[in-house]
Amino acid sequence: MSDMAGGEEAAADGSAARWGRRAWELLERVRARAPLVQCITNFVSMDLMANALLAAGASPAMVHSLREIDDFTPRADALCVNLGTLSDGWLPSMRAAAAAAARSSRPWILDPVAVSASEFRMEACLGLVALWPTVIRGNPSEIIALSSACRVRDSKGVDSFHESPDAVESAKSLAQSSGAIVAVSGATDFITDGQIVVAAQNGVAMMQKITATGCAVTALIAAFVAVEPSNPLEATSCALSIFGLAGELGMEMANGPASLRVHMIDSLHGLHEHTVASRIKISLVS
Amino acid sequence: MSDMAGGEEAAADGSAARWGRRAWELLERVRARAPLVQCITNFVSMDLMANALLAAGASPAMVHSLREIDDFTPRADALCVNLGTLSDGWLPSMRAAAAAAARSSRPWILDPVAVSASEFRMEACLGLVALWPTVIRGNPSEIIALSSACRVRDSKGVDSFHESPDAVESAKSLAQSSGAIVAVSGATDFITDGQIVVAAQNGVAMMQKITATGCAVTALIAAFVAVEPSNPLEATSCALSIFGLAGELGMEMANGPASLRVHMIDSLHGLHEHTVASRIKISLVS
Amino acid sequence: MSDMAGGEEAAADGSAARWGRRAWELLERVRARAPLVQCITNFVSMDLMANALLAAGASPAMVHSLREIDDFTPRADALCVNLGTLSDGWLPSMRAAAAAAARSSRPWILDPVAVSASEFRMEACLGLVALWPTVIRGNPSEIIALSSACRVRDSKGVDSFHESPDAVESAKSLAQSSGAIVAVSGATDFITDGQIVVAAQNGVAMMQKITATGCAVTALIAAFVAVEPSNPLEATSCALSIFGLAGELGMEMANGPASLRVHMIDSLHGLHEHTVASRIKISLVS
Repeated sequence: MSDMAGGEEAAADGSAARWGRRAWELLERVRARAPLVQCITNFVSMDLMANALLAAGASPAMVHSLREIDDFTPRADALCVNLGTLSDGWLPSMRAAAAAAARSSRPWILDPVAVSASEFRMEACLGLVALWPTVIRGNPSEIIALSSACRVRDSKGVDSFHESPDAVESAKSLAQSSGAIVAVSGATDFITDGQIVVAAQNGVAMMQKITATGCAVTALIAAFVAVEPSNPLEATSCALSIFGLAGELGMEMANGPASLRVHMIDSLHGLHEHTVASRIKISLVS
Repeated sequence: MSDMAGGEEAAADGSAARWGRRAWELLERVRARAPLVQCITNFVSMDLMANALLAAGASPAMVHSLREIDDFTPRADALCVNLGTLSDGWLPSMRAAAAAAARSSRPWILDPVAVSASEFRMEACLGLVALWPTVIRGNPSEIIALSSACRVRDSKGVDSFHESPDAVESAKSLAQSSGAIVAVSGATDFITDGQIVVAAQNGVAMMQKITATGCAVTALIAAFVAVEPSNPLEATSCALSIFGLAGELGMEMANGPASLRVHMIDSLHGLHEHTVASRIKISLVS
Repeated sequence: MSDMAGGEEAAADGSAARWGRRAWELLERVRARAPLVQCITNFVSMDLMANALLAAGASPAMVHSLREIDDFTPRADALCVNLGTLSDGWLPSMRAAAAAAARSSRPWILDPVAVSASEFRMEACLGLVALWPTVIRGNPSEIIALSSACRVRDSKGVDSFHESPDAVESAKSLAQSSGAIVAVSGATDFITDGQIVVAAQNGVAMMQKITATGCAVTALIAAFVAVEPSNPLEATSCALSIFGLAGELGMEMANGPASLRVHMIDSLHGLHEHTVASRIKISLVS
């Protein structure tokens, strides 16, 4: 009988329900406030990022010129910087916008796409990490590489650390050294502030067959943190699960990655309280 | 009995029918002539703009290098300049292409995206307005801001004009000072040459939840003006209503913004004479 | 009775069946090996190219900064260079990447989009052709123009050749002068090494109403050549037919170009052996 349910199950139920309510609360806040999210991002992802932000209720602005940072960035509610198609020409804008966001106490989120692709990219990324991102989100190999490079840098080049096979440990280390919330995307997403680790388990594997879904969820994190700047750990966790849930709902109607993309964005736009409350899968790991 | 319909109703019916026939005539002309529309536009909108132009029967060309303007722009049937992701690097091309289009007596259309985002953007936009765009299309806040800035400039900095809360009045003022047809997009689109005001009422609200729909309709205006350069007011009005009608038809099949985008483009491609003739809602306001 | 089938029919059947098995074999190899395809391409096509590569099982990387070529290009399994939105800023990266690919014995594929649009573009393209592309794919007018320009250059400016109306002859000539496999897309695609000519006949006309389908199939060629570098003629032919077949399957569910795009990518992702084996239409022309 349900009255006999063990304490642990009850706690788990209670926790899941709390996260479901929390995710819904933040989504409603995004819809109500339509936070302005400035994106300095790669060319591949702009369409999906803008449409994901619009579907969630936020207001995207792809503004990247160095000439506009001073005027524009302080007016944005959050900034999303993505290294996907990095070039010399764009890097100064990314740095200036990150610095402007930090000065204006606006949250800013870093997506270190393919940080190991070149020395240039790693150097650029380390320079941005030093500008106090609020959140860093990447896939396991990106977070492991960046975390390792930060440790090497902190130790002044003495490479006394071996690379952890475990992205979660890397994420904790990166969170501690950078001061950012670090999120590692995967079948399960892990989110950490360096101490606490939260797991978000919504999503479907086929989302990885759509280009820029990672970039899009980073933008969604920016929107969520914009409306809950005092708790970026929870805002990040909720954004990741909300996006994953949209993917799950989209998958029910999809025949492949392109129709999944369509149905995922439709689902994100149409999310209802009951669905969010009952299907969000976030839990405290440690 | 219908024979007894009052003069005003008959006039209204007759006018609606005339606009429906006119819109169909111009769409057929676009399909038959496949005008080459050069777009110097933002990174977010390129995909939707190109696909909207193709669906309407036009031929898009995203050519933006300063090195190609002299060779290419005089061969294009119309030019579309969009400030969405403006940067120092692209502005000289925009200016050169606008000047080349004007020299070649080709229509060119300006979309002053987010003109208030920065001083840099407003200055760039005012410089382009001075190069005699055939049409300027924006949302109410863009048109109000640009119109106001033009008035201030005309009056040599003496800020004796207060900003009109009415975008239509701003549009008329901007049309008079720029010599362009000015279109203000919204639930109802208003199109003016500074004297006459036309209203175009097709469209659905959810189109605003798709990134770059505004950019796409500006490109469609370029295609329509390309095949009717002697009457850019009517061509603009028809393009706006045709695109809105495609949105209405798409909405009948859509479950959210992403499927609306798909069905809207499909509908634009498949528009039939009867649908256009019977559903276009354009009328003379004053 | 089938036993009585004439020799010619049998040969034709046998050949079609062989090509069907070959196409399936290469698609399976792409899925198994997930070749990393670096794309230096135009802004319009990035989304569709990346999604087409992902749907086929390959791994796209839109890396274009000159600062990253040395580190990244030798690690890629193939390179795709596309001139769509060419500019001064990107050309050095294209050259450096093509040279790096050649040095590393990696296949690289050239898509001479709109090569006649300007003298700048033609010069850029001729410079790239001199860097030994493995495959060149274009539409008939692009291949005719490029082939003609190569002949003029070879003959030191003496314009004694008249332009062939026949793209296949131009393709053979370009293949001979460049050393590349040359593919001409159209209702029937022709692929040649300068001697042999292969025809690939899958596809539907509406694919031309979707922007960047040509760019996307060039990227797919890169993925196929990456897994069969010793026979780029067959790999190119198979990639073209596989993409065309995905379009045919998508067309069965499409209502217009935008839904065709969705269903085409879904179909590419879901292709089964039987469908490929039975519907691929490749044949030897001469």
